[in-house]
Amino acid sequence: MLVQRLLQGDRRAVARLISLVEDGDSRAYRYLTELYPHTGRAHIIGVTGAPGTGKSSLVSALAKVERRRGRTVGIISVDPTSPFTGGALLGDRIRMQDLTADRGVFIRSMASRGRVGGLAAATTDAVRVLDAFGKDKIFVETVGAGQAEVDIAKTAHTTIVVEAPGLGDEIQAFKAGVLEIADVFVVNKADRDGADKTVNALRAMLDLGTPIRARDGQAGDWRPPILKTIAIEEKGVEPLADELERHLAYLKSGDHLAARERERVADELETLLARELLADCLHRLGSDRIAQIVEQIANRALDPHSAAQLLARSADGIPVEGSAPTPAEARH
Amino acid sequence: MLVQRLLQGDRRAVARLISLVEDGDSRAYRYLTELYPHTGRAHIIGVTGAPGTGKSSLVSALAKVERRRGRTVGIISVDPTSPFTGGALLGDRIRMQDLTADRGVFIRSMASRGRVGGLAAATTDAVRVLDAFGKDKIFVETVGAGQAEVDIAKTAHTTIVVEAPGLGDEIQAFKAGVLEIADVFVVNKADRDGADKTVNALRAMLDLGTPIRARDGQAGDWRPPILKTIAIEEKGVEPLADELERHLAYLKSGDHLAARERERVADELETLLARELLADCLHRLGSDRIAQIVEQIANRALDPHSAAQLLARSADGIPVEGSAPTPAEARH
Repeated sequence: MLVQRLLQGDRRAVARLISLVEDGDSRAYRYLTELYPHTGRAHIIGVTGAPGTGKSSLVSALAKVERRRGRTVGIISVDPTSPFTGGALLGDRIRMQDLTADRGVFIRSMASRGRVGGLAAATTDAVRVLDAFGKDKIFVETVGAGQAEVDIAKTAHTTIVVEAPGLGDEIQAFKAGVLEIADVFVVNKADRDGADKTVNALRAMLDLGTPIRARDGQAGDWRPPILKTIAIEEKGVEPLADELERHLAYLKSGDHLAARERERVADELETLLARELLADCLHRLGSDRIAQIVEQIANRALDPHSAAQLLARSADGIPVEGSAPTPAEARH
Repeated sequence: MLVQRLLQGDRRAVARLISLVEDGDSRAYRYLTELYPHTGRAHIIGVTGAPGTGKSSLVSALAKVERRRGRTVGIISVDPTSPFTGGALLGDRIRMQDLTADRGVFIRSMASRGRVGGLAAATTDAVRVLDAFGKDKIFVETVGAGQAEVDIAKTAHTTIVVEAPGLGDEIQAFKAGVLEIADVFVVNKADRDGADKTVNALRAMLDLGTPIRARDGQAGDWRPPILKTIAIEEKGVEPLADELERHLAYLKSGDHLAARERERVADELETLLARELLADCLHRLGSDRIAQIVEQIANRALDPHSAAQLLARSADGIPVEGSAPTPAEARH
């Protein structure tokens, strides 16, 4: 029913399903299963970079260009560190105001409500919802450049890394492992002093980094272009949209897109599988047994690695709790 | 042997063991098991904040104060996003130069060499190594405020969140979920314009955030103090060290320290257990079977959530690969 409404273009159904996903509601998974055959058509674009680089403005400007080109757009703004509710990031709301009246655009903020590692998985699912909803271009904007961003970047076909001139310690920006995930670099706020310096520094890092990329078997013959934009004036954004198309065409040539998809699926499957296995195992062991083990570790009577191995083995095919060997036995 | 050398004060043994931990070398776990009974004495202090706040300078200054007070110090500098080797972050090296000649201080940088989620676990183990090595105060410095930082903060007894005036969009800094993890706030670079504004903004957020903390059952009657420092001039650092002591005393009063330790252990155990279970399961299923499933998901013949549930159930107590039901069977 929710799925039917969504496939028929009901925006409220989209919002509702994403909320279920965010809450980790078990109904979400049933709906996602139904939706899954309808996914796989959107071009998913990750946008990441340090605070203050103007990512939101850039995404807004890109969305407008795509709309002019006749594409529908989804925008997911992810804040891996906010414990607050998903719908209320004032800044994002203000920045994206221009777009909210356009029915061809769906905007959603997501925050970390649930458990560790849950946000990347929830974002993947939210992207999937917008994909099934028929959005042509889906932008996933993440704050910062931590592990969560790297995880989220993995769900994108094309990842834009945004820099801006004069954001303090330059080394910081380049330490961020972005070479591994960037398909396109953007130096935003390019009217500021030092824009060319930032471009040159990126180019130098790219020259240094190329062998690393090749060694990992990533990207191959794609060299990330470096573009200058002034997002709030919508300058340089058309050429950026062109580069996104060029990257998509590149992915579609040869096996690149399929290979990236397989990698993405394998990662996601591992994450979901680990979660299932852990939940099953904890359920079998029972909370008393777990509390007991935790106590022993806290008292230094058992170390965490040995405990994990022990529990993994003892939970194996033993549906009844209590039949696992005690840690003392296992130490001999 | 390595463990004996370490317990006798051999710094090279410490460096070697942390490298093994970082590499995920299986020998590391054996050594850690031996070391574990010698841990639990250090005061572990997490230091986190956005790039440009001066975390490294602050840690250096704190380390000097602790040394003057007769404590030995360990410093672990964590960069969750760098794909590069752990020992070579130029900036950190320069910033901590003053300390490297002091035998009472052990400094180590760690970067993300391995798998997702591996860094937080490796950091926990590295802290443990320095704890067993006898360091009184162990500072764990992390860049940024992403999920990795939150994970790492969980391993600390006391977490310092560092802010600085004038780092662009103020809202960004406060979105960072830091209220959940901060035991002490520091406004560093307090000689800059806007320092008091930052202090006031933090105080306002703290007033707003208090019910949230209480609801989660965290912290209880501890209200995080807000201190101003100028780390490079070593100003305000003595009072900060005093606050760290005060927080430790608070933790030791009542059940706080033990409760935090149990929470920490439970989290770590979950992470390690999930990893063990996943590795076992993938091993049993075999890579051909996994590749097959991944292909089916990529082709939209199966969705990832159903696949994960299926594999979790089929791997259950079936040590021989290939005997799991095919996804097609399982769908009926």
